[in-house]
Amino acid sequence: MRMRMLFVNGPNLNLLGKRDPDIYGRRMLSDINADIEKKADSLGISCDFFQSNSEGAIIDALQQASKEYDAVIINAGAYSHYSIAIRDCIEAIDIPCFEVHISNIYSREEFRRTSVISPVCTGCICGCGEYGYQLALMAAADHIERCGMKRK
Amino acid sequence: MRMRMLFVNGPNLNLLGKRDPDIYGRRMLSDINADIEKKADSLGISCDFFQSNSEGAIIDALQQASKEYDAVIINAGAYSHYSIAIRDCIEAIDIPCFEVHISNIYSREEFRRTSVISPVCTGCICGCGEYGYQLALMAAADHIERCGMKRK
Amino acid sequence: MRMRMLFVNGPNLNLLGKRDPDIYGRRMLSDINADIEKKADSLGISCDFFQSNSEGAIIDALQQASKEYDAVIINAGAYSHYSIAIRDCIEAIDIPCFEVHISNIYSREEFRRTSVISPVCTGCICGCGEYGYQLALMAAADHIERCGMKRK
Amino acid sequence: MRMRMLFVNGPNLNLLGKRDPDIYGRRMLSDINADIEKKADSLGISCDFFQSNSEGAIIDALQQASKEYDAVIINAGAYSHYSIAIRDCIEAIDIPCFEVHISNIYSREEFRRTSVISPVCTGCICGCGEYGYQLALMAAADHIERCGMKRK
Amino acid sequence: MRMRMLFVNGPNLNLLGKRDPDIYGRRMLSDINADIEKKADSLGISCDFFQSNSEGAIIDALQQASKEYDAVIINAGAYSHYSIAIRDCIEAIDIPCFEVHISNIYSREEFRRTSVISPVCTGCICGCGEYGYQLALMAAADHIERCGMKRK
Amino acid sequence: MRMRMLFVNGPNLNLLGKRDPDIYGRRMLSDINADIEKKADSLGISCDFFQSNSEGAIIDALQQASKEYDAVIINAGAYSHYSIAIRDCIEAIDIPCFEVHISNIYSREEFRRTSVISPVCTGCICGCGEYGYQLALMAAADHIERCGMKRK
Amino acid sequence: MRMRMLFVNGPNLNLLGKRDPDIYGRRMLSDINADIEKKADSLGISCDFFQSNSEGAIIDALQQASKEYDAVIINAGAYSHYSIAIRDCIEAIDIPCFEVHISNIYSREEFRRTSVISPVCTGCICGCGEYGYQLALMAAADHIERCGMKRK
Amino acid sequence: MRMRMLFVNGPNLNLLGKRDPDIYGRRMLSDINADIEKKADSLGISCDFFQSNSEGAIIDALQQASKEYDAVIINAGAYSHYSIAIRDCIEAIDIPCFEVHISNIYSREEFRRTSVISPVCTGCICGCGEYGYQLALMAAADHIERCGMKRK
Amino acid sequence: MRMRMLFVNGPNLNLLGKRDPDIYGRRMLSDINADIEKKADSLGISCDFFQSNSEGAIIDALQQASKEYDAVIINAGAYSHYSIAIRDCIEAIDIPCFEVHISNIYSREEFRRTSVISPVCTGCICGCGEYGYQLALMAAADHIERCGMKRK
Amino acid sequence: MRMRMLFVNGPNLNLLGKRDPDIYGRRMLSDINADIEKKADSLGISCDFFQSNSEGAIIDALQQASKEYDAVIINAGAYSHYSIAIRDCIEAIDIPCFEVHISNIYSREEFRRTSVISPVCTGCICGCGEYGYQLALMAAADHIERCGMKRK
Amino acid sequence: MRMRMLFVNGPNLNLLGKRDPDIYGRRMLSDINADIEKKADSLGISCDFFQSNSEGAIIDALQQASKEYDAVIINAGAYSHYSIAIRDCIEAIDIPCFEVHISNIYSREEFRRTSVISPVCTGCICGCGEYGYQLALMAAADHIERCGMKRK
Amino acid sequence: MRMRMLFVNGPNLNLLGKRDPDIYGRRMLSDINADIEKKADSLGISCDFFQSNSEGAIIDALQQASKEYDAVIINAGAYSHYSIAIRDCIEAIDIPCFEVHISNIYSREEFRRTSVISPVCTGCICGCGEYGYQLALMAAADHIERCGMKRK
Repeated sequence: MRMRMLFVNGPNLNLLGKRDPDIYGRRMLSDINADIEKKADSLGISCDFFQSNSEGAIIDALQQASKEYDAVIINAGAYSHYSIAIRDCIEAIDIPCFEVHISNIYSREEFRRTSVISPVCTGCICGCGEYGYQLALMAAADHIERCGMKRK
Repeated sequence: MRMRMLFVNGPNLNLLGKRDPDIYGRRMLSDINADIEKKADSLGISCDFFQSNSEGAIIDALQQASKEYDAVIINAGAYSHYSIAIRDCIEAIDIPCFEVHISNIYSREEFRRTSVISPVCTGCICGCGEYGYQLALMAAADHIERCGMKRK
Repeated sequence: MRMRMLFVNGPNLNLLGKRDPDIYGRRMLSDINADIEKKADSLGISCDFFQSNSEGAIIDALQQASKEYDAVIINAGAYSHYSIAIRDCIEAIDIPCFEVHISNIYSREEFRRTSVISPVCTGCICGCGEYGYQLALMAAADHIERCGMKRK
Repeated sequence: MRMRMLFVNGPNLNLLGKRDPDIYGRRMLSDINADIEKKADSLGISCDFFQSNSEGAIIDALQQASKEYDAVIINAGAYSHYSIAIRDCIEAIDIPCFEVHISNIYSREEFRRTSVISPVCTGCICGCGEYGYQLALMAAADHIERCGMKRK
Repeated sequence: MRMRMLFVNGPNLNLLGKRDPDIYGRRMLSDINADIEKKADSLGISCDFFQSNSEGAIIDALQQASKEYDAVIINAGAYSHYSIAIRDCIEAIDIPCFEVHISNIYSREEFRRTSVISPVCTGCICGCGEYGYQLALMAAADHIERCGMKRK
Repeated sequence: MRMRMLFVNGPNLNLLGKRDPDIYGRRMLSDINADIEKKADSLGISCDFFQSNSEGAIIDALQQASKEYDAVIINAGAYSHYSIAIRDCIEAIDIPCFEVHISNIYSREEFRRTSVISPVCTGCICGCGEYGYQLALMAAADHIERCGMKRK
Repeated sequence: MRMRMLFVNGPNLNLLGKRDPDIYGRRMLSDINADIEKKADSLGISCDFFQSNSEGAIIDALQQASKEYDAVIINAGAYSHYSIAIRDCIEAIDIPCFEVHISNIYSREEFRRTSVISPVCTGCICGCGEYGYQLALMAAADHIERCGMKRK
Repeated sequence: MRMRMLFVNGPNLNLLGKRDPDIYGRRMLSDINADIEKKADSLGISCDFFQSNSEGAIIDALQQASKEYDAVIINAGAYSHYSIAIRDCIEAIDIPCFEVHISNIYSREEFRRTSVISPVCTGCICGCGEYGYQLALMAAADHIERCGMKRK
Repeated sequence: MRMRMLFVNGPNLNLLGKRDPDIYGRRMLSDINADIEKKADSLGISCDFFQSNSEGAIIDALQQASKEYDAVIINAGAYSHYSIAIRDCIEAIDIPCFEVHISNIYSREEFRRTSVISPVCTGCICGCGEYGYQLALMAAADHIERCGMKRK
Repeated sequence: MRMRMLFVNGPNLNLLGKRDPDIYGRRMLSDINADIEKKADSLGISCDFFQSNSEGAIIDALQQASKEYDAVIINAGAYSHYSIAIRDCIEAIDIPCFEVHISNIYSREEFRRTSVISPVCTGCICGCGEYGYQLALMAAADHIERCGMKRK
Repeated sequence: MRMRMLFVNGPNLNLLGKRDPDIYGRRMLSDINADIEKKADSLGISCDFFQSNSEGAIIDALQQASKEYDAVIINAGAYSHYSIAIRDCIEAIDIPCFEVHISNIYSREEFRRTSVISPVCTGCICGCGEYGYQLALMAAADHIERCGMKRK
Repeated sequence: MRMRMLFVNGPNLNLLGKRDPDIYGRRMLSDINADIEKKADSLGISCDFFQSNSEGAIIDALQQASKEYDAVIINAGAYSHYSIAIRDCIEAIDIPCFEVHISNIYSREEFRRTSVISPVCTGCICGCGEYGYQLALMAAADHIERCGMKRK
């Protein structure tokens, strides 16, 4: 049976391709997702995609995900820097979660250098461009193979 | 012509397999390197490996690397947290550099949550276990294909 | 005429009984609410229950509550630690509000030791387990008897 | 063709006229909006009004606004102090944005003295009472005349 | 056999009824204790009362209490904010301890917002006026029934 | 009888038009003042202008102003960030004072993001370019009409 | 009827004349008190003297003083820097209190530069040597003549 | 030969009697000075008075004072909190200097609780009202008698 | 003539053997003291033992000690972390003082990692278990032989 | 044509030779200036000298200097540590500016270790005694030869 | 079989006897080592000595030590204050390690008061002069007898 | 006999001419050294040059230098910002040491604005480009002429 993974994108990531292309690249979120899907197929993994600008909706989605998916790949956008509610949710659900940032958040403004969700994610991939999502997919698959679905 | 990459491991990483296996896993650095090499071969990439406990020796190696390799993958161990000298060196050499940490440094002691080299690396991969080195290999290859050898 | 009280539970509290049972206990939110209701009945108080993962929805509920209830008992979950918007709302509505935390937030991670809503609540009850909700119910009833519906 | 501007009000501003009238005045948000509209008419500008207690809904509105309006006037209420997600959205959309606070936030509690959205707004007007919205309207019109629709 | 509980009041609480009645109420400590005793009787609990202005005397009393009582209810007054010695004592004795503050310490001066004993108490009740002592009594009884005499 | 207002400009503002024109614009202080005067005339307001590089001279002028003017519009330049003496003076005189900054100080260096005079001014207008002076003129006139000459 | 004043000296002040004579002078506490008494007599004031190394005993003495004296002159020694319990006591009793330090505490170690009791004393006299006690005596007498026994 | 002392008052102290009379009292600086002069006469001391709003002028006066006076009594007003230039001057001149504050600066805003000149003054008298100047006069006379004109 | 040394133990150290035996060991304070005495005898040193939970009593004992003993060995327990009064006393008495902690305080909670008395002790021995007292005894004897009774 | 340079000395530097000769040396400012002039002559450079205790006067002088001189050498004394107004002025004028401190400010009090003008000066020379002025003269001449009159 | 212990001295300790003899004493490292050896012999312990100025070489030595010695006594000199690499190494090797400082580091500059290796050492001995090495030797021997070679 | 001086360059300074030429200039370290040598010759001074990327090697060199040279000129590169070991070494050796930075470190990243070696150097020269080395040479010669070889 195929592994199932959910990709969660947070606030303003629906603007990808339009916002600051020097930092985030020029391709649309739908283009990126299509590439991820192709990669996932090649690895025998199913994946779904969710984007919302609302903290509450992201929490609802994560809670639901823990019942239907084997892992979550999340780019929580700006919520990464202060949403303890999303952090608590990731900690509460019992599937592994990998954090992705397209740009290198550590070389940007001071307040962007801390992610409050990093400590409760299994792994973090940042600064690898949109290819980071595919790396996270592989990392999650590797993790599940090695450790099963325990978060750490 | 094959891409060439150098893997640099910093202080105490020669103890891998012996130190805190709950955090760092039970396999030796040589086992890990062997797996990386296999993966690199499959991608048509050559790689070399360097480990040292000495900050100065790591800087010497990085300076030399910029003349012979297309990219560097570095796990600077404890030096990640305070070696501005290594940071300056990564910034000074003009090949892309990817940072790897085996464990999730963001879920450990406060002083381990900041890497002074992250801001000058192209990308960072952390908490993905020893597989993180292979992910960094793929990230570097992807980066060079997309951007050439510019650091950012 | 019976006093009316609203119990507001914030993000991830719908997971009670599933998440970290060592910290939060093994009973479901619905079980807890049933016990509260029984206690309230014995005191001649009506109560209603609201839970949401969304900051905005909690604010909407609190604004509405000030027209229909005599007091609010709130466990704002993770929002306790950063939602100045919920704080402003509690301050703006003119009924007393009591804060509850099931676990002792002062013995947990640093960031959980500050609640931005505590300063605008009338009282705080924390670390008394699920029984804390019933204590808050009694505290609110006592407060209204002594002071009427002024917040402080 | 008329300039078009959107006025966005954040959490608890729907309580204007009811909450702390010593600080915020005694007039309802609808009264204030009516006065703005009158002023706008006199300047040949159309305007619309949006209020929400939800961070996500405000982001959705701002993203949409960039397609339909020439400028945004925003009073983000408590979100001003921590919503990096709204900040990112203002930065991402390419129309000028002016921040308004009815009271002088710099003479209030410490945590209210920092607005995380100020750095990405074009200008800020604070402590001028409800008249501040009309000043912001004039400022935005002046800005567009001088600079076109560039944010800075 | 009846549960036995000790109520410990720290420095300046012997002034209750005389000091800042707007904050602490107008009733004497002896009045408050009489009400607690009545409540305790109704629950079949014996209680004793101890007050001292001396940190050392409070520690002596707490050490002794662990041999004779089932729980301690403590309002350590100003010592709450810096007495690590009392904190160590509460941590060392093996009966549950509940902290009470009559006023809401979180809405007062900065230095009053941190209690160094909160992390080692089982639960904290604050801002519920003198009724807080009775709530703590009930909380302690509930805790002992559920968990026995373990501190957490 | 006409309202009378004093415009006070602090250190280096006599360089306007010469210093960093990308930030401050290319027009001279005298040009700006001429435009303000025109606007003031249209509103039936008299105004005078004062500029000094000296903290003491600005204080002298403000003290004198309280006897001759109905309001002060001040751009205290760098003194905004540390002159508690000017702050005390604004607080001591009993006419309203509006603060203006031509650029958006919140998007500049860290030390420029705090104005020690903001808390004692009635309102602040920043980032609206030289037009900010005219907005402040209108704000002051509106304030005096609504509130008379009380500072807040 | 004569004014009555209590002089309270805290920990280690009984060592005066023996400890660090370069900082505190070479005269014994009893010598100093004798001089104070002489001065008091000349002003028609009675005074008593209390010294203790115990925080609790100082609080007991202060509480008692409020019933028998018109003012307190206190040199709380090291307790000045952290005893919130003494601070609370000074705030609670309703007679004026003047703080004295023999040496200039602001020119010594960092931790000695803050006195937690200063904010609740009427006045502070520091760095005037043992003569400071007499100055405080005069200040207290002047204060009572002007203001009666209100603390501020 | 008579001792000679200079009284230096800093910014906004010329407003005494007009500014915040609840904090600073209702008498004019000239009234206060007249009382000081009377007291000085009774002690056989001559005194002069200097007031300026300008930091530079105060430094000029202090430098000159060291040639003509035996001591300086200074209330540097707001400059107390940041003028390292005045501090350096006090440290450089070789006559004793006593600091006076009319109100208790330690019970006011945070930024007013630190005086950068306190560490280089001989003694500090604060919160004793206008009588503080006379106390400082006596303190200076006592100091010179005991120690001559050395600063410490 | 024999050297004489006083061993001072602070708050809660009378619980040794009962409190957290994993951290502090399972032997009673009296057992430990007996071993120290045996060691002291073998070195020809007399020793006495003092324990108190009261800060004031410890200060009294230290002041007295300076007249009767050649050195003090102190484990001030929790008072180590905040008692400036004990610190002042150690600094004031003119015999050498060695600090002991049974556990390694530097590997425990943040607030336990600073001892305010360390800077005024001659030496510190920590983390060596109960044997640390005997090491301190030897250190003190060695110090007195080398340096006499000067503290440093 | 000769280069022209202005030497600006800030507050209390007119006391050179009188103040703390251990730190600043025993020679008068006029002696130092005479030596500078001699050196300048030998290099074919004209120089003028300006000293003031007033922040505003220094700013006036700097603004004027940019029209008449090729470079400024400044020792801003205490203003170095807080005068953002002087900093702004140096940044605004378009000639190079070199900062001199006679003593090594980095080995003195904490507050003297930061110069707010350093970031906008071209170079800084500190701890080289009065010879530092001559080094700065040479540095400025070298800079102008290499770079012309651009500040950086 | 004899216990074997390695003494590791860090940077600049080879200068002992030459550097700041007031702080570190006048004897050479070789003299000190000779005394240690004599003491060790008397206890039936072998010891070796290693000194290096290089962080990397110290790590190499520590890694090697864990295979050949029963314990390490380390004075890491300045590396104590920032070498997380040495800290990691001590934590990684599985023999007990005791930290020694000749002087009392807690009474020196702020940055010298924190040792990053203390938390991972078994015990720390500081301020006991060169005799501290012998005390550490005894502490290590005692520890191994009681606990075997576990680090804590 | 000629003065002898050692020039020490730290990590990555061997890359001069290759790294960030906008900041550090385009000339090689060997070119710069050649110019220094020429200048030294003209002043009758001999000099040698040492560069290393290793902290330990730099310490070894500095220790050796104190036996063979009259002064050291050091650009410690990144080690300036954290190497307390190099700081200790400079403090320990008894020849004067002058610090050089080619760029103005105070106008760069926050962490580059503090040099931990500045407080123990005699003087610091920064932002004067490669010419700074020659200025330091002259400063050292001047210092030795005036003060001999004492460090301060």
